[in-house]
Amino acid sequence: MFSKLARRVLGARLATSQLSGEKYSVFWGLPLLASDAISSVAYAVDEILWALVPAIGLLSYFWIPEIAGVIVFLLLVLTVSYRQIVDAYPGGGGAYIVAKDNLKTTYGLIVGASLSVDYILTVAVSVSAGTAAITSAFPSLFTHRVGIAITIIVLLIIGNLRGVKESSRWFGFPTYAFLAAIIVLIVSGIMKGGNVDKSDIPSFPVSDVAFGTQAVTIFLLLKAFSSGCAAVTGVEAIADAVPNFKDPAPKNAKIAYVLLAFAVFITFGGVAYLSTIYHPVPSAQQTVISQIASAVFGKGIIFYSIQATTALLLAMAANTAFAGFPTLLSIIAQDGYAPRQLAIRGHRLNFSNGIAVLGLMAIFLIIVFQGDTHLLIPLYAVGVFTSFTLAQFGMLARWLRMKPKGWRHKALINGIGAVITLITVIIIGIEKFTSGAWIVLLLIPLIVMVMTRIKEHYNSVAKQLDIPNDRLSILSLEAKYDHHLVVPIASLNGLVVLAMRYARSLTPNVVAFHVETYAGEADKLRKKWQLLDTDIPLVIKQSPYREIVGPLVEYIDSEEHASKPGDMITVLLPQFIVSKGWEMALHNNTSIFIANALFDKRHVVVSVLPFYLEDLPIGRNKRENTPQ
Amino acid sequence: MFSKLARRVLGARLATSQLSGEKYSVFWGLPLLASDAISSVAYAVDEILWALVPAIGLLSYFWIPEIAGVIVFLLLVLTVSYRQIVDAYPGGGGAYIVAKDNLKTTYGLIVGASLSVDYILTVAVSVSAGTAAITSAFPSLFTHRVGIAITIIVLLIIGNLRGVKESSRWFGFPTYAFLAAIIVLIVSGIMKGGNVDKSDIPSFPVSDVAFGTQAVTIFLLLKAFSSGCAAVTGVEAIADAVPNFKDPAPKNAKIAYVLLAFAVFITFGGVAYLSTIYHPVPSAQQTVISQIASAVFGKGIIFYSIQATTALLLAMAANTAFAGFPTLLSIIAQDGYAPRQLAIRGHRLNFSNGIAVLGLMAIFLIIVFQGDTHLLIPLYAVGVFTSFTLAQFGMLARWLRMKPKGWRHKALINGIGAVITLITVIIIGIEKFTSGAWIVLLLIPLIVMVMTRIKEHYNSVAKQLDIPNDRLSILSLEAKYDHHLVVPIASLNGLVVLAMRYARSLTPNVVAFHVETYAGEADKLRKKWQLLDTDIPLVIKQSPYREIVGPLVEYIDSEEHASKPGDMITVLLPQFIVSKGWEMALHNNTSIFIANALFDKRHVVVSVLPFYLEDLPIGRNKRENTPQ
Repeated sequence: MFSKLARRVLGARLATSQLSGEKYSVFWGLPLLASDAISSVAYAVDEILWALVPAIGLLSYFWIPEIAGVIVFLLLVLTVSYRQIVDAYPGGGGAYIVAKDNLKTTYGLIVGASLSVDYILTVAVSVSAGTAAITSAFPSLFTHRVGIAITIIVLLIIGNLRGVKESSRWFGFPTYAFLAAIIVLIVSGIMKGGNVDKSDIPSFPVSDVAFGTQAVTIFLLLKAFSSGCAAVTGVEAIADAVPNFKDPAPKNAKIAYVLLAFAVFITFGGVAYLSTIYHPVPSAQQTVISQIASAVFGKGIIFYSIQATTALLLAMAANTAFAGFPTLLSIIAQDGYAPRQLAIRGHRLNFSNGIAVLGLMAIFLIIVFQGDTHLLIPLYAVGVFTSFTLAQFGMLARWLRMKPKGWRHKALINGIGAVITLITVIIIGIEKFTSGAWIVLLLIPLIVMVMTRIKEHYNSVAKQLDIPNDRLSILSLEAKYDHHLVVPIASLNGLVVLAMRYARSLTPNVVAFHVETYAGEADKLRKKWQLLDTDIPLVIKQSPYREIVGPLVEYIDSEEHASKPGDMITVLLPQFIVSKGWEMALHNNTSIFIANALFDKRHVVVSVLPFYLEDLPIGRNKRENTPQ
Repeated sequence: MFSKLARRVLGARLATSQLSGEKYSVFWGLPLLASDAISSVAYAVDEILWALVPAIGLLSYFWIPEIAGVIVFLLLVLTVSYRQIVDAYPGGGGAYIVAKDNLKTTYGLIVGASLSVDYILTVAVSVSAGTAAITSAFPSLFTHRVGIAITIIVLLIIGNLRGVKESSRWFGFPTYAFLAAIIVLIVSGIMKGGNVDKSDIPSFPVSDVAFGTQAVTIFLLLKAFSSGCAAVTGVEAIADAVPNFKDPAPKNAKIAYVLLAFAVFITFGGVAYLSTIYHPVPSAQQTVISQIASAVFGKGIIFYSIQATTALLLAMAANTAFAGFPTLLSIIAQDGYAPRQLAIRGHRLNFSNGIAVLGLMAIFLIIVFQGDTHLLIPLYAVGVFTSFTLAQFGMLARWLRMKPKGWRHKALINGIGAVITLITVIIIGIEKFTSGAWIVLLLIPLIVMVMTRIKEHYNSVAKQLDIPNDRLSILSLEAKYDHHLVVPIASLNGLVVLAMRYARSLTPNVVAFHVETYAGEADKLRKKWQLLDTDIPLVIKQSPYREIVGPLVEYIDSEEHASKPGDMITVLLPQFIVSKGWEMALHNNTSIFIANALFDKRHVVVSVLPFYLEDLPIGRNKRENTPQ
């Protein structure tokens, strides 16, 4: 029944042969994989203004275009670089594979760890910001923000478990809606040229004497730049998911990259430019886009539409991670650095375990940080730029090593990117260390360590399990064990008779074993046993503490020690099956406890014999299915 | 480690032979079993005043002695009657056994269901009221009342899991402290004769025109009487727990009953009498005892001591149920009307399952009713008086049937009790129906139905499993099955070799079974298998949906249908054991899923072969424990 419900919600399972049919075109793949990068427009300009306005006041709007320009340039460098990565690595994997291939494996693992953390943060940050956009429009929902955020994540999990293609359509639409809304805003905003009612834009806090009086320093501008770098997070996603595009996958992915860069350039550049006209002030109550939109259009239908598409896109941007994270983890798992369950495709052909892990971790973060975007963002950028930096250095090392046609030009692009992102990661690491980056800086080496341990374990297991082909032919599958069968029994009933018959048909060495929990309790059983015409011995052990499993394990242990090498003890557990689940709860089900206790016991095989009551040889049985 | 912690908290396990050592004397048994009845003084007078004051105002205090007198008389009748029950049933079981023995079994089950529900309510009501006493003294704790109540219940669970004797000492002390405090209050209150500052006693709400203007009707007095009957709940407990007293258990239990009646008479009678002097007004903010105590002593150390002992006793009164409920359920379980796990003594010799069930249900009620005593009390009395009534009628029937010496006198007492309690249960059932009694009136028949179903199930199973002694000697434990062994394998490794050796040493009919999850994936395995010098066939099945368990089950099913009667399929699951728990999580552990899927499959035995990696015949094995 549960699995029926699951199939209803998640869709019918898909055969492996349907795999290629689940890939997506550029038109639907782009919004799916680019929504993270595009949606960051909704908070990136805010972040720049948060860094500048409290320090230098009105002068901020003078520096906005410069800083935005550098970020757009960085975006272009990353785009060009990642197009080169797509070409070099059409199998997907992005920065992880680039670093692992061209640098040391450890760098690959650092990238893998960074990106894994960041995908989780992408979900948490985007969903928090999306929820904040909703609660900005409807302040009464503010107290329910954690619940709203969790609901959104659960819907994302379900959508993604349904499958790649459907999710790209479900989640692609909001990206286009947002793009359209922002373009309308930019065009209208520029046309009106700021000649509007600006009553909704907050004024500077005059009471703070230090406000806006600091000097413009390089450090301040770099801080603003690093804050604004939130805009370029998410560029990784397309490179990770290259194989998810329709064939020719690499070409489609590269087209998607150009379109992505163009979309971010238009929206981020446009909003940054509008902010120089409308002078929005960073505020926890109202986002920059919301301030500009309400100034340009007033609080009417267009304003609410812009807010709605922004909120929707932010929530959907989290979906980028649902496409990228499971794919990345499946690649890491195939390399043996993550549990191999993450490399298994689920009923709907996606990496369902990865989807579930991502969703649950993000929900955990939302609960811990109470859905507060500003608390989450400092954790966010360190990992992204760590992986960017290592990817760039990896590509640089590749060009220097391979020296293909035009390698100087390519190396220059990656070199510039490497230096810029390295500076950025250092600035972010230092500046945001105390406000949360330390968590990630601690977590990444920890994850790398765990990954290394996992790999070591798989290697050691594989080495010990492996049989070289040349040994196969001289290996015998035949052996002669001395089998001992122990049948734990509670009383002498029809079940025991069947179990004994099964046991004796395998080996003559059968022992019935009973635990006496109260003194004298076993007398009746002993007397009944004597009535039987059998040479099977009945062993009775006292249990002063009324435990069943303990004395049995002790007996097995003593049996095992007494036995010679080559002996094999099999514990046979007769288990009767009742037709209704609730009826099972009425029985002690000792056999389950015994099976668990003996599960990892060396040289002890646990066998469970299920019997249906109506098959028993005694009583009102319907058929006598027992050979004599 | 977890079990070590548990032993630390709960004490070392006790041997069955230590059972009698865990019984309690009258001095410690009385406060343990009587705390429910005695503590009800803390809210019974309030309940009477709640019924009277809003209707007839000052006139209430005129009627208090009359109503309290009837309740005390009822208490005496119940005490005398229950002493007779103790004599007739020294094995314990109280009303349940009385009704089952002397009336129809169904009436016994009704009593069992009523008492079970009431024990749970006792815990919920007492702990809620105790928490309310705490939060009355410290209003800032009010918002934490659910947490406080749950903490108290958890402490009760732990205390009771530790064991009978220890819990009687832990929990007996507050009863004596409360008795001392209340006697001090009564003596001082009578001596001061009301000549004190009464500013803390609330005045009547004069704004309500209807207040205190109704006529005194029989119905009103019966309503007040039925509300006050909360004072006599808990009388059952001693009769239920007779065997827990030191020998001579029945005599000790009867002494305890006399002492109980005396204690309730003094405290309930005393507080009722004080209320005619001090005219307390029922209030949600301050209890009657608290009003009187603050008037007599002022808000000083004595007042707080009385509040503290009251709160402590109320919380500890819940403990009555922890003594009675598991014992009652164990008796019902021994009769086969409840899951038999409830009749098993735990490590500390108490009925640990019953203790856990009671605690968890009470926590559930606390959460649902948010720890509000007034919402819980209407659910409370119906069940108590249902069981009282049936016990009285049961005793009446017994005297009428057996006619022992002095049976007329005994029958008269029980007859009066039966009529009074029957009237009370009808009044409570009608009056409090809408405010919560309906839940219990619905629940009791439901529980009786479930109990009957459980009994039917046990009967049917026992009947089907049972072998009459005269059949034992002609029953053969020998049989010849055609064994088929199926070994599911993922690859050809050292584990598989060992499994095959085990399998072949039992029967020549062995099949290796592999599920191909991706097309072509099994080719390597097939080639390796051909290198082996064996006649064991390798069966490969396609799995288009990448499931492992499904195709195996299908194969087993097809095997089963093809086989003749008397064939037995054994599925052999090689499972390798890694030393650390977290390493198990790195593997698919498919064998666990297979074992679960085949658990209830007819004629299919599931055998798990655990192997430690170092025991494998190939690789860096430490010892070659494999016979050739």
